[in-house]
Amino acid sequence: MSEKPGITAKKEKEFSEWYTQAVLKSELADYSSVKGCMVIRPLGYAVWEKIRDYFDARIKLHSVKNAYFPLFIPESFFKKEAQHAEGFRPEVAWIANRDENSEQLAIRPTSETVMYDSFSRWVRSWRDLPLKINQWCNVVRWETKAVKLFLRTREFLWQEGHCVYATREEAEKETKVFMEEYKKLCEELLAIPVVCGIKTEKDKFAGAVYTTTVEALMPDGKALQMGTSHNLGQGFSKSFGITFLDKNSERKTPWQISWGFSTRLIGGVAMVHGDDKGLVLPPKIAPAQAVIIPITFGKDSKEVLQKSLEIKNKLSKSIRVELDSRETYTPGWKFNEWELKGTPIRIEIGPRDIAKKQVVVARRDTGKKQAVKTAALSKKIEGLLEEIQESMLEKARKALQSRTAKPKTWAEAEKAIKDKKMVLMMFCGKEECEDMIKDRTGGASARCSPFEQPKKPGKCLQCGKQAGSMTYFSRAY
Amino acid sequence: MSEKPGITAKKEKEFSEWYTQAVLKSELADYSSVKGCMVIRPLGYAVWEKIRDYFDARIKLHSVKNAYFPLFIPESFFKKEAQHAEGFRPEVAWIANRDENSEQLAIRPTSETVMYDSFSRWVRSWRDLPLKINQWCNVVRWETKAVKLFLRTREFLWQEGHCVYATREEAEKETKVFMEEYKKLCEELLAIPVVCGIKTEKDKFAGAVYTTTVEALMPDGKALQMGTSHNLGQGFSKSFGITFLDKNSERKTPWQISWGFSTRLIGGVAMVHGDDKGLVLPPKIAPAQAVIIPITFGKDSKEVLQKSLEIKNKLSKSIRVELDSRETYTPGWKFNEWELKGTPIRIEIGPRDIAKKQVVVARRDTGKKQAVKTAALSKKIEGLLEEIQESMLEKARKALQSRTAKPKTWAEAEKAIKDKKMVLMMFCGKEECEDMIKDRTGGASARCSPFEQPKKPGKCLQCGKQAGSMTYFSRAY
Repeated sequence: MSEKPGITAKKEKEFSEWYTQAVLKSELADYSSVKGCMVIRPLGYAVWEKIRDYFDARIKLHSVKNAYFPLFIPESFFKKEAQHAEGFRPEVAWIANRDENSEQLAIRPTSETVMYDSFSRWVRSWRDLPLKINQWCNVVRWETKAVKLFLRTREFLWQEGHCVYATREEAEKETKVFMEEYKKLCEELLAIPVVCGIKTEKDKFAGAVYTTTVEALMPDGKALQMGTSHNLGQGFSKSFGITFLDKNSERKTPWQISWGFSTRLIGGVAMVHGDDKGLVLPPKIAPAQAVIIPITFGKDSKEVLQKSLEIKNKLSKSIRVELDSRETYTPGWKFNEWELKGTPIRIEIGPRDIAKKQVVVARRDTGKKQAVKTAALSKKIEGLLEEIQESMLEKARKALQSRTAKPKTWAEAEKAIKDKKMVLMMFCGKEECEDMIKDRTGGASARCSPFEQPKKPGKCLQCGKQAGSMTYFSRAY
Repeated sequence: MSEKPGITAKKEKEFSEWYTQAVLKSELADYSSVKGCMVIRPLGYAVWEKIRDYFDARIKLHSVKNAYFPLFIPESFFKKEAQHAEGFRPEVAWIANRDENSEQLAIRPTSETVMYDSFSRWVRSWRDLPLKINQWCNVVRWETKAVKLFLRTREFLWQEGHCVYATREEAEKETKVFMEEYKKLCEELLAIPVVCGIKTEKDKFAGAVYTTTVEALMPDGKALQMGTSHNLGQGFSKSFGITFLDKNSERKTPWQISWGFSTRLIGGVAMVHGDDKGLVLPPKIAPAQAVIIPITFGKDSKEVLQKSLEIKNKLSKSIRVELDSRETYTPGWKFNEWELKGTPIRIEIGPRDIAKKQVVVARRDTGKKQAVKTAALSKKIEGLLEEIQESMLEKARKALQSRTAKPKTWAEAEKAIKDKKMVLMMFCGKEECEDMIKDRTGGASARCSPFEQPKKPGKCLQCGKQAGSMTYFSRAY
């Protein structure tokens, strides 16, 4: 145990330190000697693969196809869409190598421009639409603040979807379709409840008409943006010369959307579900959904190992299960390690269990243990995994509810934010007022305005002017 | 048809132009406005996903785990292993952004150094070994020659495996294990026969003790390196300070290997199997293994479409099948397009076929057509896909055999290379002699020396000196 101590910080008291230790000690990720960067270790990458495989299957149902575009973006591409260029310029990394008579190249912070340059050659006729392309790749944004594992690094992995439609209506509709997919991903896969809505003008994607977002609330009262879907209107189409001939052979300008989420989701999972013993992974994304730990003592060990292997082979047919038969670690050491890594279910098998034709099953999320007859084990474990997945979402939903306030006065709003809550309040929508709210609350920003709004407009809670819409505010990552 | 003409160049006569057209017109890939780069289009990326998924499952059987390391490599990392630094320096891309007091960063051309920096912290004890890590990622090598789609681009996608072992024997053995996996991948999945062996000193990986390689011969007489597996010895371990305590608590230096293959494999598939009509994809990597094309004429079209959909749903249970029910293209246009894209089987359904309870099945590789009773279709198609996969390998194997020469004299060797053959001949192993062979043959280089060698050493065919080993020579990509 001396080599790999558990987490020494308490989640409740020292959240930031707890998070760092949880990520490092569970071996989700590691710092790198490369400034601003992190290493996604096998556990973290396996979680990413689960998220990717789920989402990849979902978008294929929407006829989205994967492709791969260059890492490099010529400077002139950025300049074609003025707002986009302005928004990304401060955080772009540039290549020092330069060919003769060639312009400077950036490393992609996002791929709108390099993709739409190709789209302008691919889209010719209404027959080519809709065009729905997705890319799983790395992107670079030259952060100057210190690394926060999964949440703030110069490079991260993500998916970026880019679609082109013949009509405004399709673009409108599908902006929301992919936002809904993100909501589903967060809630059904990651067991993280979210609020959805539209970003303020100040916070929208550089070059978009509007940005929809899916936001989760972390235990420290900060929101985490889990995914965004942008309605780009015709701005990029016009800048990149994307046009098509419609059924009447008239030349038209199409409508575009883009949408993305990144490896930061893994950080969200760690923060929302983890406890003082380490990670708690939702069964659907846990690389190992259950671990079998043989409780061996000298003479009985052969029989116990044999039985363990038998059970592993049986369970493997329906779930992802590991057998930890390492001889150089004690069962107690193994319990701690698999708890640290967040494995949803632990199955203990000792000589006495074998005699009773049972095993002991422990839940990572509640810590509850129970004896289960070996004959009924597969069914029991399958049911338990579903139960854990649901109850983790339920628990997180209650936490979100209890930390969401609907203040009636500005004083109540201030207090709620101080109490690490997210507030939903009437807001005028003005940038100056948003800045004022940030100042007065020590950092709360507008997260989003839900699509469903009250029919009667009220007054902005901060400035008292005619309000635009009910808007979520909180501090944020 | 006017918008998307077929390939106008003949494979036999204008191979290079044929290849470019085959890749562009099938929409495997596209040029990009970004100099030196290409776009992998949905068809190409779907093929890559098939290759990736197959190989990913294979390496997981060898207990390899995926992870993700930074794109950036500090200059000092390169300098730690002198040969490695020297080998890669000419083709490294550098980042212009530079933090205060920080060194220059390169974009990874390969990740030995950035991974081994982490490994030096992860490996502590014999319990941590073997450590087997793989990464699927993009890499950059600053090519100055013109783009050759899939074969020569500044950025490409690949996998790179990196393993650390306690003993020299394990490293030796596993260098070959992964080379054998590449052979299996090429032959069983891509239907491309290969020769395997060891690279000459001149051609080995920068920093390796030796490099093993898997080489295929393209129809133009040039070899294509399909994958390499390097025994790195202890060079990197020593440079990066990777050590471990063995069972006796003694500090030891471990042994390392690395192995990789890239998206150039897709180019190999296009070259080896394609014909004047376009790509011919092996069934195992074809995104659509069969396409159903309804032959519709006015009044019967509803029934034909219904029957087509019924057959599609049935076949979907066991194979990857598409139904091309687009109304804006004629059946003939569709035949050409799916042939261009290399789809292994075409299924035609017309009113007369329905009356006879049959469909017409056409093979892409041979062009042969046959009527098949609808009731027996699933079994027939499954069998046919296996048959196509095997017969494509068989055909490619015969081509390789007929284009491999074992010359007895230098004159025979020269002639064979002129005739676009690969030669296997006695070679002294000296770099000066290898350079001379290149000069005298107009570009042939040593590809590899097979592991199995004749017991009696002979004389080098070119210089007449005592020979080192039988070695393959050919021109190469």
